[in-house]
Amino acid sequence: MNTNRHGDIVQALADAGFTLPAPPAPLAAYTPALQTGQLAFTSGQLPLVDGKLEATGKVGDGPGLISPDTAREQAARCALNALAALATMLGDLGRIARVAKLTGFVASDPAFTSQSAVIDGASELLKAAFGADGVHTRSAVGVAVLPKDSPVEVELTVALH
Amino acid sequence: MNTNRHGDIVQALADAGFTLPAPPAPLAAYTPALQTGQLAFTSGQLPLVDGKLEATGKVGDGPGLISPDTAREQAARCALNALAALATMLGDLGRIARVAKLTGFVASDPAFTSQSAVIDGASELLKAAFGADGVHTRSAVGVAVLPKDSPVEVELTVALH
Amino acid sequence: MNTNRHGDIVQALADAGFTLPAPPAPLAAYTPALQTGQLAFTSGQLPLVDGKLEATGKVGDGPGLISPDTAREQAARCALNALAALATMLGDLGRIARVAKLTGFVASDPAFTSQSAVIDGASELLKAAFGADGVHTRSAVGVAVLPKDSPVEVELTVALH
Repeated sequence: MNTNRHGDIVQALADAGFTLPAPPAPLAAYTPALQTGQLAFTSGQLPLVDGKLEATGKVGDGPGLISPDTAREQAARCALNALAALATMLGDLGRIARVAKLTGFVASDPAFTSQSAVIDGASELLKAAFGADGVHTRSAVGVAVLPKDSPVEVELTVALH
Repeated sequence: MNTNRHGDIVQALADAGFTLPAPPAPLAAYTPALQTGQLAFTSGQLPLVDGKLEATGKVGDGPGLISPDTAREQAARCALNALAALATMLGDLGRIARVAKLTGFVASDPAFTSQSAVIDGASELLKAAFGADGVHTRSAVGVAVLPKDSPVEVELTVALH
Repeated sequence: MNTNRHGDIVQALADAGFTLPAPPAPLAAYTPALQTGQLAFTSGQLPLVDGKLEATGKVGDGPGLISPDTAREQAARCALNALAALATMLGDLGRIARVAKLTGFVASDPAFTSQSAVIDGASELLKAAFGADGVHTRSAVGVAVLPKDSPVEVELTVALH
Protein backbone atom coordinates (compact mmCIF):
# COMPACT_ATOMS: atom_id res chain seq x y z
CA MET A 1 0.00 0.00 0.00
CA ASN A 2 2.41 2.67 1.21
CA THR A 3 5.77 1.37 0.08
CA ASN A 4 7.60 4.43 1.31
CA ARG A 5 6.24 3.95 4.80
CA HIS A 6 7.42 0.33 4.71
CA GLY A 7 10.84 1.57 3.65
CA ASP A 8 10.85 4.12 6.46
CA ILE A 9 10.08 1.42 9.01
CA VAL A 10 12.81 -0.86 7.68
CA GLN A 11 15.21 2.10 7.80
CA ALA A 12 14.19 2.97 11.36
CA LEU A 13 14.90 -0.63 12.35
CA ALA A 14 18.29 -0.44 10.62
CA ASP A 15 19.06 2.79 12.48
CA ALA A 16 18.34 0.91 15.70
CA GLY A 17 20.67 -1.89 14.61
CA PHE A 18 18.11 -4.44 13.48
CA THR A 19 17.56 -6.20 10.15
CA LEU A 20 14.19 -7.71 9.34
CA PRO A 21 14.84 -11.46 9.14
CA ALA A 22 13.58 -13.93 6.56
CA PRO A 23 9.98 -14.99 7.10
CA PRO A 24 9.47 -17.86 9.53
CA ALA A 25 9.05 -21.32 8.08
CA PRO A 26 5.51 -22.43 7.22
CA LEU A 27 3.79 -24.39 9.95
CA ALA A 28 1.25 -27.19 10.00
CA ALA A 29 -1.90 -26.37 11.93
CA TYR A 30 -1.19 -22.75 12.74
CA THR A 31 0.24 -19.71 11.04
CA PRO A 32 2.76 -17.02 12.06
CA ALA A 33 0.34 -14.14 11.38
CA LEU A 34 -3.23 -13.56 10.28
CA GLN A 35 -5.52 -10.64 9.46
CA THR A 36 -9.15 -10.38 10.48
CA GLY A 37 -10.98 -7.13 9.83
CA GLN A 38 -8.73 -4.24 10.82
CA LEU A 39 -6.70 -6.34 13.25
CA ALA A 40 -3.78 -8.67 12.70
CA PHE A 41 -2.45 -11.17 15.19
CA THR A 42 0.90 -12.89 15.37
CA SER A 43 1.65 -16.23 16.91
CA GLY A 44 3.90 -16.18 19.95
CA GLN A 45 7.38 -15.59 18.56
CA LEU A 46 10.53 -17.13 19.95
CA PRO A 47 13.86 -15.28 19.51
CA LEU A 48 14.98 -17.60 16.74
CA VAL A 49 17.92 -16.56 14.57
CA ASP A 50 18.19 -18.68 11.42
CA GLY A 51 15.82 -21.13 13.06
CA LYS A 52 17.87 -21.54 16.24
CA LEU A 53 17.77 -20.12 19.75
CA GLU A 54 20.92 -18.27 20.79
CA ALA A 55 20.21 -18.87 24.47
CA THR A 56 18.01 -21.30 26.36
CA GLY A 57 16.91 -21.56 29.97
CA LYS A 58 15.37 -19.43 32.67
CA VAL A 59 16.00 -15.72 33.15
CA GLY A 60 17.28 -14.43 36.45
CA ASP A 61 20.25 -13.24 38.46
CA GLY A 62 22.75 -15.95 39.28
CA PRO A 63 24.75 -18.84 37.90
CA GLY A 64 23.09 -21.00 35.29
CA LEU A 65 20.49 -18.33 34.50
CA ILE A 66 20.15 -16.09 31.45
CA SER A 67 20.97 -12.53 32.47
CA PRO A 68 18.27 -9.85 32.24
CA ASP A 69 20.39 -7.96 29.68
CA THR A 70 20.65 -10.97 27.41
CA ALA A 71 16.95 -11.67 27.87
CA ARG A 72 16.16 -8.09 26.88
CA GLU A 73 18.06 -8.57 23.62
CA GLN A 74 16.18 -11.81 23.06
CA ALA A 75 12.87 -10.00 23.62
CA ALA A 76 13.84 -7.50 20.93
CA ARG A 77 14.53 -10.41 18.62
CA CYS A 78 11.07 -11.84 19.35
CA ALA A 79 9.52 -8.51 18.34
CA LEU A 80 11.64 -8.41 15.19
CA ASN A 81 10.46 -11.91 14.27
CA ALA A 82 6.87 -10.81 14.88
CA LEU A 83 7.40 -7.92 12.45
CA ALA A 84 8.86 -10.36 9.92
CA ALA A 85 5.75 -12.53 10.25
CA LEU A 86 3.52 -9.48 9.75
CA ALA A 87 5.60 -8.21 6.82
CA THR A 88 5.29 -11.58 5.07
CA MET A 89 1.55 -11.75 5.66
CA LEU A 90 0.74 -8.08 4.91
CA GLY A 91 3.34 -7.54 2.20
CA ASP A 92 3.99 -4.08 3.62
CA LEU A 93 4.67 -3.00 7.21
CA GLY A 94 3.25 0.39 6.24
CA ARG A 95 -0.20 -1.16 6.55
CA ILE A 96 0.25 -1.25 10.33
CA ALA A 97 -1.56 1.77 11.77
CA ARG A 98 -0.81 1.01 15.40
CA VAL A 99 0.77 -1.67 17.51
CA ALA A 100 -2.18 -2.38 19.80
CA LYS A 101 -1.09 -5.08 22.25
CA LEU A 102 2.04 -6.97 23.16
CA THR A 103 2.11 -9.94 25.49
CA GLY A 104 5.56 -10.95 26.70
CA PHE A 105 6.23 -14.20 28.49
CA VAL A 106 9.55 -14.52 30.31
CA ALA A 107 10.70 -17.99 31.42
CA SER A 108 11.66 -16.93 34.92
CA ASP A 109 13.60 -18.15 37.88
CA PRO A 110 11.00 -17.82 40.67
CA ALA A 111 13.11 -15.13 42.36
CA PHE A 112 13.32 -12.96 39.24
CA THR A 113 10.83 -10.09 39.22
CA SER A 114 12.09 -7.72 36.50
CA GLN A 115 10.03 -9.12 33.63
CA SER A 116 9.14 -5.54 32.67
CA ALA A 117 12.75 -4.63 32.01
CA VAL A 118 13.15 -7.72 29.82
CA ILE A 119 10.06 -6.99 27.75
CA ASP A 120 11.19 -3.36 27.36
CA GLY A 121 13.56 -4.79 24.73
CA ALA A 122 10.55 -5.69 22.59
CA SER A 123 8.63 -2.49 23.36
CA GLU A 124 11.55 -0.26 22.51
CA LEU A 125 12.14 -2.00 19.19
CA LEU A 126 8.52 -1.35 18.24
CA LYS A 127 8.78 2.28 19.25
CA ALA A 128 11.99 2.60 17.22
CA ALA A 129 10.25 1.09 14.19
CA PHE A 130 6.90 2.90 14.32
CA GLY A 131 7.42 5.95 16.53
CA ALA A 132 4.25 6.99 18.38
CA ASP A 133 2.29 4.35 16.44
CA GLY A 134 4.52 1.73 18.02
CA VAL A 135 3.48 2.63 21.58
CA HIS A 136 1.23 -0.22 22.71
CA THR A 137 -0.51 -1.80 25.65
CA ARG A 138 1.30 -4.78 27.05
CA SER A 139 1.42 -7.47 29.67
CA ALA A 140 4.67 -8.95 30.93
CA VAL A 141 4.50 -12.16 32.93
CA GLY A 142 6.99 -14.65 34.29
CA VAL A 143 6.20 -18.21 33.31
CA ALA A 144 7.63 -21.57 34.35
CA VAL A 145 9.09 -22.61 31.01
CA LEU A 146 8.66 -21.85 27.32
CA PRO A 147 8.75 -23.99 24.15
CA LYS A 148 12.25 -25.20 23.20
CA ASP A 149 13.42 -23.80 26.56
CA SER A 150 13.28 -20.30 25.07
CA PRO A 151 13.90 -17.48 27.57
CA VAL A 152 11.23 -15.22 26.04
CA GLU A 153 8.13 -15.36 23.86
CA VAL A 154 6.29 -12.32 22.47
CA GLU A 155 2.99 -12.01 20.60
CA LEU A 156 1.50 -8.92 18.95
CA THR A 157 -1.90 -7.60 18.01
CA VAL A 158 -1.77 -4.70 15.55
CA ALA A 159 -4.37 -2.40 14.01
CA LEU A 160 -4.23 -1.94 10.24
CA HIS A 161 -4.96 1.02 7.97
CA MET B 1 -27.25 -18.87 9.62
CA ASN B 2 -25.71 -21.62 7.49
CA THR B 3 -27.06 -24.77 9.09
CA ASN B 4 -25.43 -27.03 6.56
CA ARG B 5 -22.04 -25.56 7.35
CA HIS B 6 -22.67 -26.22 11.07
CA GLY B 7 -23.56 -29.78 10.16
CA ASP B 8 -20.40 -30.12 8.07
CA ILE B 9 -18.27 -28.96 11.00
CA VAL B 10 -19.96 -31.35 13.41
CA GLN B 11 -19.43 -34.14 10.86
CA ALA B 12 -15.76 -33.21 10.40
CA LEU B 13 -15.33 -33.40 14.17
CA ALA B 14 -17.04 -36.80 14.20
CA ASP B 15 -14.73 -37.99 11.42
CA ALA B 16 -11.82 -36.97 13.65
CA GLY B 17 -13.34 -38.91 16.54
CA PHE B 18 -14.82 -36.03 18.51
CA THR B 19 -18.35 -35.27 19.66
CA LEU B 20 -19.36 -31.73 20.56
CA PRO B 21 -20.11 -31.86 24.30
CA ALA B 22 -23.02 -30.32 26.15
CA PRO B 23 -22.61 -26.60 26.77
CA PRO B 24 -20.61 -25.66 29.86
CA ALA B 25 -22.54 -24.80 33.00
CA PRO B 26 -23.52 -21.14 33.46
CA LEU B 27 -21.09 -19.13 35.54
CA ALA B 28 -21.44 -16.23 37.94
CA ALA B 29 -19.39 -13.20 37.00
CA TYR B 30 -18.07 -14.39 33.67
CA THR B 31 -19.31 -16.26 30.63
CA PRO B 32 -17.94 -19.11 28.49
CA ALA B 33 -18.16 -17.12 25.24
CA LEU B 34 -19.12 -13.68 24.00
CA GLN B 35 -19.46 -11.82 20.71
CA THR B 36 -18.38 -8.25 20.10
CA GLY B 37 -18.52 -6.89 16.58
CA GLN B 38 -17.16 -9.52 14.21
CA LEU B 39 -15.09 -11.21 16.89
CA ALA B 40 -16.00 -13.78 19.50
CA PHE B 41 -13.92 -14.72 22.52
CA THR B 42 -14.03 -17.80 24.69
CA SER B 43 -13.01 -18.08 28.29
CA GLY B 44 -10.03 -20.27 29.00
CA GLN B 45 -11.34 -23.81 28.70
CA LEU B 46 -10.23 -26.70 30.83
CA PRO B 47 -10.42 -30.25 29.42
CA LEU B 48 -13.51 -31.08 31.45
CA VAL B 49 -15.53 -34.16 30.51
CA ASP B 50 -18.95 -34.18 32.16
CA GLY B 51 -17.68 -31.48 34.49
CA LYS B 52 -14.60 -33.40 35.64
CA LEU B 53 -10.93 -33.46 34.73
CA GLU B 54 -9.66 -36.84 33.51
CA ALA B 55 -6.11 -36.00 34.54
CA THR B 56 -4.57 -33.47 36.90
CA GLY B 57 -1.04 -32.31 37.54
CA LYS B 58 1.96 -31.06 35.63
CA VAL B 59 2.97 -32.17 32.17
CA GLY B 60 6.43 -33.58 31.56
CA ASP B 61 8.55 -36.66 31.11
CA GLY B 62 8.95 -38.76 34.21
CA PRO B 63 7.15 -40.38 37.13
CA GLY B 64 4.26 -38.44 38.61
CA LEU B 65 3.90 -36.26 35.54
CA ILE B 66 1.22 -36.25 32.85
CA SER B 67 2.74 -37.55 29.62
CA PRO B 68 2.93 -35.25 26.59
CA ASP B 69 0.67 -37.63 24.65
CA THR B 70 -2.03 -37.48 27.31
CA ALA B 71 -1.65 -33.72 27.54
CA ARG B 72 -2.08 -33.45 23.79
CA GLU B 73 -5.40 -35.29 24.04
CA GLN B 74 -6.41 -32.99 26.88
CA ALA B 75 -5.56 -29.97 24.73
CA ALA B 76 -7.87 -31.29 22.01
CA ARG B 77 -10.58 -31.60 24.63
CA CYS B 78 -10.05 -27.97 25.66
CA ALA B 79 -10.54 -26.90 22.03
CA LEU B 80 -13.66 -29.06 21.76
CA ASN B 81 -15.07 -27.41 24.89
CA ALA B 82 -14.27 -23.99 23.41
CA LEU B 83 -16.25 -24.96 20.29
CA ALA B 84 -19.13 -26.11 22.51
CA ALA B 85 -19.09 -22.71 24.24
CA LEU B 86 -19.11 -20.93 20.88
CA ALA B 87 -21.85 -23.19 19.49
CA THR B 88 -24.07 -22.41 22.48
CA MET B 89 -23.47 -18.69 22.22
CA LEU B 90 -23.66 -18.40 18.42
CA GLY B 91 -26.28 -21.08 17.82
CA ASP B 92 -24.36 -22.21 14.76
CA LEU B 93 -20.67 -22.98 14.31
CA GLY B 94 -21.11 -22.07 10.64
CA ARG B 95 -21.01 -18.44 11.73
CA ILE B 96 -17.29 -18.82 12.43
CA ALA B 97 -15.40 -17.43 9.45
CA ARG B 98 -11.92 -18.03 10.82
CA VAL B 99 -10.26 -19.19 13.98
CA ALA B 100 -8.06 -16.15 14.61
CA LYS B 101 -6.05 -16.83 17.77
CA LEU B 102 -5.45 -19.66 20.19
CA THR B 103 -3.59 -19.30 23.45
CA GLY B 104 -2.61 -22.55 25.10
CA PHE B 105 -1.31 -22.76 28.65
CA VAL B 106 0.41 -26.00 29.68
CA ALA B 107 0.98 -26.65 33.39
CA SER B 108 4.58 -27.70 33.01
CA ASP B 109 7.31 -29.41 34.90
CA PRO B 110 10.15 -26.85 34.64
CA ALA B 111 12.21 -29.30 32.55
CA PHE B 112 9.44 -29.83 29.99
CA THR B 113 9.87 -27.76 26.83
CA SER B 114 7.50 -29.38 24.29
CA GLN B 115 4.48 -27.16 24.95
CA SER B 116 4.08 -26.78 21.18
CA ALA B 117 3.53 -30.49 20.69
CA VAL B 118 0.90 -30.49 23.45
CA ILE B 119 -1.01 -27.56 22.00
CA ASP B 120 -0.87 -29.17 18.55
CA GLY B 121 -3.70 -31.35 19.88
CA ALA B 122 -5.93 -28.27 20.02
CA SER B 123 -4.66 -26.79 16.76
CA GLU B 124 -5.20 -30.02 14.85
CA LEU B 125 -8.75 -30.39 16.14
CA LEU B 126 -9.57 -26.90 14.87
CA LYS B 127 -8.03 -27.65 11.50
CA ALA B 128 -10.03 -30.90 11.33
CA ALA B 129 -13.23 -28.99 12.11
CA PHE B 130 -12.79 -25.93 9.89
CA GLY B 131 -10.16 -26.85 7.30
CA ALA B 132 -8.15 -23.85 6.11
CA ASP B 133 -10.43 -21.55 8.14
CA GLY B 134 -9.28 -23.36 11.27
CA VAL B 135 -5.62 -22.44 10.76
CA HIS B 136 -4.90 -19.80 13.39
CA THR B 137 -2.20 -17.82 15.13
CA ARG B 138 -1.28 -19.17 18.53
CA SER B 139 0.91 -18.90 21.56
CA ALA B 140 1.89 -21.91 23.65
CA VAL B 141 3.40 -21.27 27.06
CA GLY B 142 4.36 -23.38 30.04
CA VAL B 143 2.86 -22.14 33.29
CA ALA B 144 3.38 -23.08 36.92
CA VAL B 145 -0.09 -24.42 37.66
CA LEU B 146 -3.64 -24.13 36.30
CA PRO B 147 -7.08 -23.96 37.93
CA LYS B 148 -8.22 -27.27 39.46
CA ASP B 149 -4.70 -28.59 38.74
CA SER B 150 -5.65 -28.93 35.08
CA PRO B 151 -2.77 -29.91 32.78
CA VAL B 152 -3.93 -27.60 29.97
CA GLU B 153 -6.09 -24.54 29.36
CA VAL B 154 -6.99 -23.14 25.92
CA GLU B 155 -8.75 -19.94 24.88
CA LEU B 156 -9.90 -18.90 21.41
CA THR B 157 -10.60 -15.73 19.50
CA VAL B 158 -12.61 -16.29 16.32
CA ALA B 159 -13.76 -14.04 13.49
CA LEU B 160 -17.43 -14.29 12.49
CA HIS B 161 -19.21 -14.01 9.15
CA MET C 1 -20.31 10.76 25.78
CA ASN C 2 -22.84 9.61 28.33
CA THR C 3 -21.72 11.42 31.46
CA ASN C 4 -24.58 10.07 33.52
CA ARG C 5 -23.59 6.53 32.70
CA HIS C 6 -20.03 7.32 33.81
CA GLY C 7 -21.45 8.67 37.05
CA ASP C 8 -23.59 5.58 37.51
CA ILE C 9 -20.56 3.36 37.10
CA VAL C 10 -18.51 5.38 39.58
CA GLN C 11 -21.44 5.21 42.00
CA ALA C 12 -21.80 1.45 41.53
CA LEU C 13 -18.11 1.08 42.33
CA ALA C 14 -18.57 3.23 45.43
CA ASP C 15 -21.52 1.08 46.51
CA ALA C 16 -19.20 -1.93 46.25
CA GLY C 17 -16.60 -0.11 48.35
CA PHE C 18 -14.20 0.98 45.61
CA THR C 19 -12.93 4.40 44.56
CA LEU C 20 -11.51 4.92 41.10
CA PRO C 21 -7.82 5.71 41.67
CA ALA C 22 -5.72 8.39 40.04
CA PRO C 23 -4.57 7.48 36.54
CA PRO C 24 -1.39 5.42 36.36
CA ALA C 25 1.86 7.24 35.69
CA PRO C 26 2.86 7.72 32.05
CA LEU C 27 5.22 5.08 30.73
CA ALA C 28 8.02 5.06 28.18
CA ALA C 29 7.51 2.58 25.38
CA TYR C 30 4.03 1.40 26.24
CA THR C 31 0.76 2.86 27.44
CA PRO C 32 -1.79 1.84 30.11
CA ALA C 33 -4.71 1.76 27.65
CA LEU C 34 -5.39 2.22 23.97
CA GLN C 35 -8.38 2.28 21.61
CA THR C 36 -8.46 0.71 18.17
CA GLY C 37 -11.76 0.62 16.31
CA GLN C 38 -14.50 -0.41 18.70
CA LEU C 39 -12.10 -2.19 21.04
CA ALA C 40 -9.90 -0.90 23.84
CA PHE C 41 -7.09 -2.81 25.48
CA THR C 42 -5.39 -2.24 28.82
CA SER C 43 -1.88 -3.17 29.76
CA GLY C 44 -1.54 -5.81 32.42
CA GLN C 45 -2.35 -4.04 35.65
CA LEU C 46 -0.66 -4.72 38.97
CA PRO C 47 -2.59 -4.05 42.20
CA LEU C 48 -0.68 -0.85 42.89
CA VAL C 49 -2.04 1.56 45.48
CA ASP C 50 -0.40 4.97 45.25
CA GLY C 51 2.29 3.35 43.14
CA LYS C 52 3.12 0.59 45.63
CA LEU C 53 2.20 -3.05 46.07
CA GLU C 54 0.47 -3.86 49.35
CA ALA C 55 1.59 -7.47 49.19
CA THR C 56 4.29 -9.32 47.26
CA GLY C 57 5.05 -12.97 46.71
CA LYS C 58 3.33 -16.14 45.60
CA VAL C 59 -0.29 -17.01 46.33
CA GLY C 60 -1.13 -20.24 48.13
CA ASP C 61 -2.05 -21.93 51.35
CA GLY C 62 0.69 -21.99 53.92
CA PRO C 63 3.36 -19.98 55.67
CA GLY C 64 5.16 -17.34 53.62
CA LEU C 65 2.45 -17.32 50.96
CA ILE C 66 -0.20 -14.70 50.19
CA SER C 67 -3.59 -16.06 51.19
CA PRO C 68 -6.26 -16.61 48.52
CA ASP C 69 -8.51 -14.05 50.26
CA THR C 70 -5.83 -11.37 50.14
CA ALA C 71 -5.04 -12.27 46.54
CA ARG C 72 -8.71 -11.92 45.66
CA GLU C 73 -8.70 -8.37 47.04
CA GLN C 74 -5.56 -7.66 45.06
CA ALA C 75 -7.24 -8.96 41.91
CA ALA C 76 -10.10 -6.51 42.48
CA ARG C 77 -7.54 -3.75 42.79
CA CYS C 78 -5.99 -4.77 39.46
CA ALA C 79 -9.41 -4.48 37.81
CA LEU C 80 -9.95 -1.08 39.44
CA ASN C 81 -6.61 0.11 38.10
CA ALA C 82 -7.58 -1.16 34.65
CA LEU C 83 -10.78 0.90 34.85
CA ALA C 84 -8.73 3.93 35.90
CA ALA C 85 -6.51 3.45 32.85
CA LEU C 86 -9.57 3.18 30.60
CA ALA C 87 -11.26 6.20 32.23
CA THR C 88 -8.16 8.31 31.61
CA MET C 89 -7.87 7.20 28.01
CA LEU C 90 -11.60 7.31 27.13
CA GLY C 91 -12.56 10.28 29.31
CA ASP C 92 -15.78 8.50 30.22
CA LEU C 93 -16.36 4.93 31.43
CA GLY C 94 -19.85 5.19 29.92
CA ARG C 95 -18.24 4.61 26.54
CA ILE C 96 -17.63 0.99 27.55
CA ALA C 97 -20.38 -1.11 25.99
CA ARG C 98 -19.15 -4.44 27.27
CA VAL C 99 -16.21 -5.91 29.11
CA ALA C 100 -15.16 -8.49 26.52
CA LYS C 101 -12.17 -10.34 27.94
CA LEU C 102 -10.20 -10.52 31.14
CA THR C 103 -6.94 -12.38 31.55
CA GLY C 104 -5.81 -12.90 35.11
CA PHE C 105 -2.34 -14.11 36.01
CA VAL C 106 -1.82 -15.37 39.56
CA ALA C 107 1.76 -15.79 40.83
CA SER C 108 1.20 -19.23 42.30
CA ASP C 109 2.79 -21.67 44.62
CA PRO C 110 2.87 -24.84 42.47
CA ALA C 111 0.43 -26.55 44.84
CA PHE C 112 -2.16 -23.76 44.62
CA THR C 113 -4.98 -24.52 42.18
CA SER C 114 -7.70 -21.99 43.06
CA GLN C 115 -6.70 -19.29 40.57
CA SER C 116 -10.36 -18.98 39.59
CA ALA C 117 -11.39 -17.92 43.09
CA VAL C 118 -8.64 -15.29 43.12
CA ILE C 119 -9.62 -13.83 39.76
CA ASP C 120 -13.27 -13.77 40.86
CA GLY C 121 -12.25 -10.65 42.79
CA ALA C 122 -11.64 -8.86 39.51
CA SER C 123 -14.65 -10.36 37.74
CA GLU C 124 -17.02 -9.40 40.53
CA LEU C 125 -15.77 -5.82 40.61
CA LEU C 126 -16.50 -5.51 36.90
CA LYS C 127 -19.96 -6.97 37.34
CA ALA C 128 -20.59 -4.54 40.21
CA ALA C 129 -19.49 -1.62 38.03
CA PHE C 130 -21.24 -2.50 34.76
CA GLY C 131 -23.96 -5.00 35.63
CA ALA C 132 -24.71 -7.43 32.79
CA ASP C 133 -22.34 -5.45 30.53
CA GLY C 134 -19.53 -6.32 32.94
CA VAL C 135 -19.93 -10.07 32.45
CA HIS C 136 -16.94 -11.12 30.36
CA THR C 137 -14.96 -14.05 29.05
CA ARG C 138 -11.83 -14.75 31.00
CA SER C 139 -8.81 -16.92 31.48
CA ALA C 140 -7.19 -17.46 34.87
CA VAL C 141 -3.74 -19.00 34.96
CA GLY C 142 -1.11 -19.63 37.61
CA VAL C 143 2.29 -18.30 36.65
CA ALA C 144 5.74 -18.64 38.18
CA VAL C 145 6.31 -15.00 39.13
CA LEU C 146 5.04 -11.54 38.16
CA PRO C 147 6.73 -8.14 37.75
CA LYS C 148 7.75 -6.52 41.06
CA ASP C 149 6.83 -9.85 42.74
CA SER C 150 3.15 -8.89 42.40
CA PRO C 151 0.70 -11.64 43.42
CA VAL C 152 -1.72 -10.83 40.59
CA GLU C 153 -1.85 -9.13 37.19
CA VAL C 154 -5.04 -8.46 35.20
CA GLU C 155 -5.56 -7.17 31.66
CA LEU C 156 -8.84 -6.20 29.98
CA THR C 157 -10.25 -5.97 26.48
CA VAL C 158 -13.46 -3.94 26.28
CA ALA C 159 -15.92 -3.14 23.50
CA LEU C 160 -16.89 0.51 23.08
CA HIS C 161 -20.13 2.20 22.06
